[in-house]
Amino acid sequence: MKKTRSGVDLRLYLVTDRGLAGGRSLEEIVYQSVAGGVTAVQLREKEATARQFLQQGEALRRATSKLGIPFLVNDRVDIAQACGADGVHLGQSDMPCALARRILGESRIIGVSVSTLEEAVEAQAEGADYLGVGPVFATSTKVDALPATGLGLLEAIGRAVAIPLVGIGGINQTNAGEVILAGASGVAVVSAIIAGADPGKAARSLRSKTDAATEEVSRRYGKKYPKIV
Amino acid sequence: MKKTRSGVDLRLYLVTDRGLAGGRSLEEIVYQSVAGGVTAVQLREKEATARQFLQQGEALRRATSKLGIPFLVNDRVDIAQACGADGVHLGQSDMPCALARRILGESRIIGVSVSTLEEAVEAQAEGADYLGVGPVFATSTKVDALPATGLGLLEAIGRAVAIPLVGIGGINQTNAGEVILAGASGVAVVSAIIAGADPGKAARSLRSKTDAATEEVSRRYGKKYPKIV
Repeated sequence: MKKTRSGVDLRLYLVTDRGLAGGRSLEEIVYQSVAGGVTAVQLREKEATARQFLQQGEALRRATSKLGIPFLVNDRVDIAQACGADGVHLGQSDMPCALARRILGESRIIGVSVSTLEEAVEAQAEGADYLGVGPVFATSTKVDALPATGLGLLEAIGRAVAIPLVGIGGINQTNAGEVILAGASGVAVVSAIIAGADPGKAARSLRSKTDAATEEVSRRYGKKYPKIV
Repeated sequence: MKKTRSGVDLRLYLVTDRGLAGGRSLEEIVYQSVAGGVTAVQLREKEATARQFLQQGEALRRATSKLGIPFLVNDRVDIAQACGADGVHLGQSDMPCALARRILGESRIIGVSVSTLEEAVEAQAEGADYLGVGPVFATSTKVDALPATGLGLLEAIGRAVAIPLVGIGGINQTNAGEVILAGASGVAVVSAIIAGADPGKAARSLRSKTDAATEEVSRRYGKKYPKIV
């Protein structure tokens, strides 16, 4: 396994949702959305058996390898290992980051979902490579989503930790720029790319907004922003 | 991690089911049933989040270590690793055995559930240490259980593979002896131990039946039976 932890670009981070794919394959959506500007992909499966999850992981690993795009698996460290993913993304109900790090070693990426400042500081201390912060805005994609945190939490966490932040939750082309201006190095989206008929077009539209905001951030704060993993 | 693959005794193998525990802790049930003769414990969790599953795994790892009893985790290879379990038990909808072996290495036990001869031969070829064969009898513990295989399948698999077999599914004190006589080195039980008020007594009753059958098998076939992992 080559070291994949450095240089990972989370500017536009696609998180999958089979329920929103409307019968299209996730590979198809990944190919189209990466062509439109998606820079990283996370496979999230909530209903699948481990074997189905693994098979989908293997398919997306092949697709993202061809595309040269980092690929992460939600929740299951073992499936990330088995399909050769670049890393794992852990929620607060998943395995603690420190234990996942012990299993995965230093060569793979670990991202952690946080929705408070305390969780953010703890995740960094446990060895997280990046944080998914949110839900920034109200979202209907996750049925168990917490109340929206707003942009203020992103700003507060950005002052408290050194690792890159990715905003998630209710992000679309009208608000994606604000998320970057609030200190996120990237935005993670589900429905904004998957729910529509044209994932490539949706990704291009999002990237035009986040790229403009990223340029603005770089002008203000210099080369330190946006951060990469 | 010490090598735990040899000398593991699966004569009376308790598989947990929180829904049948009726508010009692699984640790309590494990302590009582091991005192009664349970020789190995598997934690099965179908509704829990990964973090809950892990915390329960850590608690049962502590209990089984004190008791000197092997401890396995159902389905999740990563949780088995994180809580220091002796191994993992995989169903046909879980990760394939060969991939789990690649992740776990040779020091941990891998058991595989099979309900056909083909699955049994494949699991042995993929590196399984033992097979859970069943459901031998009709069972209500698993809502997605297959039709009962009967004792014939156990006999057929016993002729085809070299690794130990554990019968599972609808086994209780009235039929446990037959399962051993059909070629299983042990019986795995859920409700026969957990559903009752006295797990220790239930385990003692089961052991008296399986021990008698094991003696009978040893008389017939010599020291090769029953097999240990």
